Amino acid sequence: MRDVCVVGLGLIGGSVLRAAKAAGRTVWGAAELADAVKAEQDGFTVFPLDEALAKARDEDALVVLAVPLPAVPDVLRKVRPGTRLTDVTSVKGPVSDAVHRYAPEARFVGGHPMSGTSRSGWEAGRADLFRGAAWVVTPEQLDDVLIDVITLALDTGAHVVPTTPEEHDAAVARISHLPHVMAAVLAAVGADGGPLALALAAGSFGDGTRVAGSRPELVRAMCEGNRDALLGAVDDALGRLGAARGSLASTGGLAKTIDAGHQARQQLVTQPDRTPLTIDLTAPEALDALRSLGARGGRIIALNGTTAKAETS
Amino acid sequence: MRDVCVVGLGLIGGSVLRAAKAAGRTVWGAAELADAVKAEQDGFTVFPLDEALAKARDEDALVVLAVPLPAVPDVLRKVRPGTRLTDVTSVKGPVSDAVHRYAPEARFVGGHPMSGTSRSGWEAGRADLFRGAAWVVTPEQLDDVLIDVITLALDTGAHVVPTTPEEHDAAVARISHLPHVMAAVLAAVGADGGPLALALAAGSFGDGTRVAGSRPELVRAMCEGNRDALLGAVDDALGRLGAARGSLASTGGLAKTIDAGHQARQQLVTQPDRTPLTIDLTAPEALDALRSLGARGGRIIALNGTTAKAETS
Repeated sequence: MRDVCVVGLGLIGGSVLRAAKAAGRTVWGAAELADAVKAEQDGFTVFPLDEALAKARDEDALVVLAVPLPAVPDVLRKVRPGTRLTDVTSVKGPVSDAVHRYAPEARFVGGHPMSGTSRSGWEAGRADLFRGAAWVVTPEQLDDVLIDVITLALDTGAHVVPTTPEEHDAAVARISHLPHVMAAVLAAVGADGGPLALALAAGSFGDGTRVAGSRPELVRAMCEGNRDALLGAVDDALGRLGAARGSLASTGGLAKTIDAGHQARQQLVTQPDRTPLTIDLTAPEALDALRSLGARGGRIIALNGTTAKAETS
Repeated sequence: MRDVCVVGLGLIGGSVLRAAKAAGRTVWGAAELADAVKAEQDGFTVFPLDEALAKARDEDALVVLAVPLPAVPDVLRKVRPGTRLTDVTSVKGPVSDAVHRYAPEARFVGGHPMSGTSRSGWEAGRADLFRGAAWVVTPEQLDDVLIDVITLALDTGAHVVPTTPEEHDAAVARISHLPHVMAAVLAAVGADGGPLALALAAGSFGDGTRVAGSRPELVRAMCEGNRDALLGAVDDALGRLGAARGSLASTGGLAKTIDAGHQARQQLVTQPDRTPLTIDLTAPEALDALRSLGARGGRIIALNGTTAKAETS
């Protein structure tokens, strides 16, 4: 099993480090002082960044970039040529661009595990954070680094959703970044109602504003880093909310809005029927097959050598 | 202890019936066939509506109106003059108007327990549904029916928030009805992203769309019944979402939106310091003191004869 070096030991990076160790791998990390101290106290090996990256190149380990998007370029500048590299950042287009610019000789495959809580930092991490979660990969070529990343993701208990950076960023704008913006808007409109409104707030307001409790600087980095795709999603939300407003004002009815929302929620909670599929990763058309799998609702659930066991919905 | 007759045995009415019985009261209900059969199977007494209301008048019981807003006028037409009457409907202005119109001789105090789940119907009810919840009352005069309603609410484990119908409706538009509209919009924008978006949806999308799983006809009745106040809340949300859009497009930043949302969420989850207060319900200024209590973040937590033990934030 390939060694793993995780740079950034917050919620996600710290969970990757724990999960990779739990899967029997040799692991080490690099992190800011606060997280580094806590990780060492918990028995993990932490090096200064340069040393961690040098060791990774020497031992041909997989480096997992787990710092917030604004910190990505500084780390990339220090990555050695030929390094096996992946990331867990919540946008894929900008990270791919940054790798091409700052670490063009790294052997990079983008990744993004879809796990999060409103907590953050090393102590919020867990070895089982990714169990049952989707872990996106955005391969630009088919090689052994892709196999490394898929294997690591499967080792943590996740299933793997291959797609393109563009499709990933458009999707997460809708289901991850827009929810943060909507939660912030809803929370502020509620608080504008004064002490009575907050005193009466119950289930629906609590659920709808929960992620507004996340650390603002992390939410901003995530949302602002996906600006183009998020603008499209916000425009869709404005259009739908404006249509609801118009319908309520003119006819007094909200049928279209409420029914469409209910139908969409049913789609989310209803597990689709899944059709099994195997993909030979050495076949010439495998890269295209992989990159289109996510858009079809598909995922990889196991790897047997170079054969991926997948399923589509 | 006064007997209680509950009309409508869905989630809220069914829970009131159970909670009142658990508090040692004599209770009976009236309901549509499906809920009525299940309530009887669970050992409760259910009568046809006319009979239930006649018995309530004969025995000077408190009638709790727990049908959806569109069904309220039909029930009110059958309420006998002099009946002690309250309701648990999610809007207070329109219900108060309907009582004045269809049952002007009823002795009415509006009420609204702030409890709900995305489930509905008799089988979703629980005797402890109101424990720790806010139960709004909107008294128009100070009398023994108000004492009845406050006592019932406290008996179920709720605390009582007195306010006016107008202030109640404006507050719940923000913290209950707008969250349903926002959840519906978010769910639809997510589903528009296709199978990939739904496959990647995790915590934030799940939380933000949860209430879109509620029965659409109940959500519509609730939201459409509070049209005027909801329009104001939707306009505030449109304004804030539009400002976020403008800021993201022009400067790339979302600081104002995300920070305001975070601050509002902190206000929600941080318990305010509370100052104890007693209100003599026989004093001439007591009605004004009560009706302004909610707007100050206040609530009644116990009743001792005609003295209310309250606290403000």
